[in-house]
Amino acid sequence: MRPQDLIEKKRDGGELSDDEIAFLIRGYTGDEIPDYQISAWLMAAFLRGMSSAETQSLLSEMLHSGEILSHDQISAPKVDKHSTGGVGDKTSLVIAPVAAACGVAVPMISGRALAHTGGTLDKLESIPGFRTNLSLNEFRSVLERCGLALIGQTREIAPADRKLYTLRDLTATVPFRPFICASILSKKLAEGIDGLVLDVKFGNGAFMREFSEARALAQMMTDVCHSMKKRVVALLTNMNQPLGHWVGNAVETREAIETLQGNLTGDFAELSLELSAWMLVVAGVTNDLDSARQQATQSITSGKALEKFGECIKAQGGDARVLDNLSLLPQAQHQYVITARQSGYISHIETDEIGRIIMDWGGGRQRIEDQIDPSVGLYLHAKLGDAVKTGDPVVTAYYNDESKLEELCKRLSRSVTISESAPTIEPLIREIINP
Amino acid sequence: MRPQDLIEKKRDGGELSDDEIAFLIRGYTGDEIPDYQISAWLMAAFLRGMSSAETQSLLSEMLHSGEILSHDQISAPKVDKHSTGGVGDKTSLVIAPVAAACGVAVPMISGRALAHTGGTLDKLESIPGFRTNLSLNEFRSVLERCGLALIGQTREIAPADRKLYTLRDLTATVPFRPFICASILSKKLAEGIDGLVLDVKFGNGAFMREFSEARALAQMMTDVCHSMKKRVVALLTNMNQPLGHWVGNAVETREAIETLQGNLTGDFAELSLELSAWMLVVAGVTNDLDSARQQATQSITSGKALEKFGECIKAQGGDARVLDNLSLLPQAQHQYVITARQSGYISHIETDEIGRIIMDWGGGRQRIEDQIDPSVGLYLHAKLGDAVKTGDPVVTAYYNDESKLEELCKRLSRSVTISESAPTIEPLIREIINP
Repeated sequence: MRPQDLIEKKRDGGELSDDEIAFLIRGYTGDEIPDYQISAWLMAAFLRGMSSAETQSLLSEMLHSGEILSHDQISAPKVDKHSTGGVGDKTSLVIAPVAAACGVAVPMISGRALAHTGGTLDKLESIPGFRTNLSLNEFRSVLERCGLALIGQTREIAPADRKLYTLRDLTATVPFRPFICASILSKKLAEGIDGLVLDVKFGNGAFMREFSEARALAQMMTDVCHSMKKRVVALLTNMNQPLGHWVGNAVETREAIETLQGNLTGDFAELSLELSAWMLVVAGVTNDLDSARQQATQSITSGKALEKFGECIKAQGGDARVLDNLSLLPQAQHQYVITARQSGYISHIETDEIGRIIMDWGGGRQRIEDQIDPSVGLYLHAKLGDAVKTGDPVVTAYYNDESKLEELCKRLSRSVTISESAPTIEPLIREIINP
Repeated sequence: MRPQDLIEKKRDGGELSDDEIAFLIRGYTGDEIPDYQISAWLMAAFLRGMSSAETQSLLSEMLHSGEILSHDQISAPKVDKHSTGGVGDKTSLVIAPVAAACGVAVPMISGRALAHTGGTLDKLESIPGFRTNLSLNEFRSVLERCGLALIGQTREIAPADRKLYTLRDLTATVPFRPFICASILSKKLAEGIDGLVLDVKFGNGAFMREFSEARALAQMMTDVCHSMKKRVVALLTNMNQPLGHWVGNAVETREAIETLQGNLTGDFAELSLELSAWMLVVAGVTNDLDSARQQATQSITSGKALEKFGECIKAQGGDARVLDNLSLLPQAQHQYVITARQSGYISHIETDEIGRIIMDWGGGRQRIEDQIDPSVGLYLHAKLGDAVKTGDPVVTAYYNDESKLEELCKRLSRSVTISESAPTIEPLIREIINP
């Protein structure tokens, strides 16, 4: 087999066999096939498409390029949640403790903030001492003791994905559904899970602005999981405004803790509870969604989920006193309130721009190696459809770098539109794919 | 400008500007843009297509990546001929001396045998002592003295083409018309020519089997030359059988010399004279094609073209006595005659297979670094449409490696079909594009 012959086959619209995809991915991971041949194949696949068999084969090769965890010593069902990324999306910090409190083991490997979207790892690291870089042995041990463990991708997990992602990023081959699907699932399935809940976001704060795009990805991912005998459900959720009231790192951790403490109002708590309920259903804790919702809610009202989170924080080296004293989280030095220039209703929020403002103020990253300022944050006093009067606070910015105040507040102000009439409010969850 | 943004633009079907193509090609030639980004762009262009402005821009960048010769000291018009490659195609060895004898300067930079097609350089090097690796200064000096000079590509000529060709070869992006066009013309225009005659071949011995493909390439190349103010003409010629009676290296040189000595029968002499006549027209020696044909023929019958070839051989270090003594050319040790198993007419020749048999017997190359055996050759006693009787010789093989005799003669035998009825004979020159 020669790489150029397989590139040619794909170039001409052919379908590669399992063996042929294995040859390419193993050859690339083993440094036997050079970057320039793989990038030609990536582009050919991008433009010619990949069959579902090819996608599954690619996923399988990426998954098996590294270690696949097994948790035979844990009898509880192992289920994880994955979000395609958004602004203000801190549901993992609520869902993992809730599911664990309800008897599910949650071996969660998460990502960092990138571009306008936040990352679970950065939010967790705003808790003093919290270590996300556990070894796989530590990860297993925390999971066994607490029922949840929250870490970042390690070298052992899907190395082919890491190598391919770097190449895709430099060759304009990132936004292609089969690649996205294989990349996400190779990392998730390596966690050793029995089932997966997918939060696939669409809208102006998501990577996929169009619902149809997000739906197609959700369909592809659920199909692939299904044919690999994993229980799976996908929620298609609206990302046309930040989730919850807070955007940033420490401030989102704070909002998650407040939710675990029993503040169950608003879209963030609603989505966290729905996703948690689906975790329980996928795990087989119950087959009834209503019952699952009740169990999830009770885990919060009883304080059990918060306790689980405390155990996990302690086990991962963090200062669990934050749960009783939120002022232990990093605080920004300054704040600035943006007020409404007219009365009316919040009718539009440039959600990705909100994310970019956080990033530009130091709270996110442009490159994966950038350092972040965990204390930077925004508080949205009003959300889509809320009525405001002239002079009412709309957004409060919490920041350290004063030099950017003028420019960023100008952009912030432009990101929120107030209209005379109330907008139509779209549902938070638009569709559920439950194969 | 970032390479990935330009790749994305082409991926999405956009048209790159001159500056953008310059950025890519200069960056690649200067080792600032890595292989893997260029190969992704090559594949995107292959699948999305390139506009004629993009093709011209690519050609221009490839051409200007190296030295462009100028021959201000030579007052004669500078014209070259280029063939897209075939089997038994030794016309350069006749055309260059004929055109030079008629007052045209022919600065010819040629290629080597590759795959099933032969190469002018290998044929020339079968002449004892003949050097094709002249420096550009030697090349200029031979051209000035003799009116023709015949060398291989040097490091100074179109280095971007050399680098890109290697990458294309490994990424399945060779057979794409704009790349082929830019590659051919970047090398030819670097010769410092005023005009060009293109021999674009189609049929089972050519790289383009289909006439329509060959025609499209001829049209593209003549359009580009025309818009770059170069006089150009393209002949679309039939390659459904080897040109002439001989295929090999020394044996083709011998056939060319015999033609220059006055043997003007058959398709090889016919095409050589037609191409030579067009060289004179493109050079402006005469505007009348019939007069050009006469001048070309006279240069042979008068012995002047043979004399020119002799001068060139001497100037390039070769033993010009071969012109009087063909036995000075390398001779194979053995010969084997394949005879007709039935009476009838030669109705089909697997021309590319004929080329591959020569290659497999050591007379061609699979890889550019392979050494060749110049003495290996085939003589076709009968050509398409010729009548043969059972037992008549059809092909005689001249070879050294006896171990391959059985297999190769079997393949040779299968390559020539004899039918009961005479086939329709296609014209040698199917169309002339003279913009």
